Amino acid sequence: MRKIFMAAAVLALGTGLAFSRSERPAPAPNGIELPADFADWRLISISARSDNDTMRAILGNKAAIKAAREGRIKPWPDGTVLAKVAWKRKTHEAWPAASVPGDFVQVEFMVKDSRKYAETGGWGFARWVGGALKPYGKDPGFVRECFACHTPVKDSDYVFTRPVFMPAAR
Amino acid sequence: MRKIFMAAAVLALGTGLAFSRSERPAPAPNGIELPADFADWRLISISARSDNDTMRAILGNKAAIKAAREGRIKPWPDGTVLAKVAWKRKTHEAWPAASVPGDFVQVEFMVKDSRKYAETGGWGFARWVGGALKPYGKDPGFVRECFACHTPVKDSDYVFTRPVFMPAAR
Repeated sequence: MRKIFMAAAVLALGTGLAFSRSERPAPAPNGIELPADFADWRLISISARSDNDTMRAILGNKAAIKAAREGRIKPWPDGTVLAKVAWKRKTHEAWPAASVPGDFVQVEFMVKDSRKYAETGGWGFARWVGGALKPYGKDPGFVRECFACHTPVKDSDYVFTRPVFMPAAR
Repeated sequence: MRKIFMAAAVLALGTGLAFSRSERPAPAPNGIELPADFADWRLISISARSDNDTMRAILGNKAAIKAAREGRIKPWPDGTVLAKVAWKRKTHEAWPAASVPGDFVQVEFMVKDSRKYAETGGWGFARWVGGALKPYGKDPGFVRECFACHTPVKDSDYVFTRPVFMPAAR
């Protein structure tokens, strides 16, 4: 446990963020809890946005990875959880043409439950901001903002991300 | 097995690449075999290069993830394997300011064994190119090219990638 805490401290030091395992982040205003193990999820895709200068990794829980590899994403099945981790873009000090992740910005989740979240396309939304992982939104109505932004991609089940091709993925 | 094959076919269809589980890629000219499970490895970092218009995900085997989270990366321990998966950059059709992965380009590996690969900084290098995963290099001397490119980052154990900060990573 001490080893784990020190590892977190080393990483936090390296990026200027303070976060320890003993601080469990508060749930989102709609009751969604931060999945404790999301950093261990496998890769769905990556993206970069020039409009807010961020780089992102999109990870999926087991149900999401299985669905992605079997091509069952229109719609994604109930039980799917997608995580989008965002960092500010920075230039690699030894390779000026390379952009790499800098400071951690936020982590966002889409949780598929077609009954529970029927009003927002079957998806529950949640976001935790900054190194302190502060839940986004003042009340459960914050999801209207999320859903409005995702509505243009209704044809891909409200998901912007397309799983990448990964050779040899089983 | 049939299900797995079909999943691969669906993914291949989706990206215009042909790859099936029955074709085992040839080893690299230095004898390194493609790690069969690399698509299941966890995230170390991501990057984007404007000089060749690619986007990359850097994944790590268990030893690499453990080392990254404990801050033991100068040097990375023996047993570390890093995978860099590269795709051509394309613009997201529904979000013009977003870049996302397009066609698969290649997957590259760095394998740490300080004795076996003592002549190249303790790292074995390997690359498989395109959907057919063709090994890169005509003979074992191909590693000179890899090592020359990585020599400027000798101070970070010849590795360009810095592990990203992932809140709650254990």
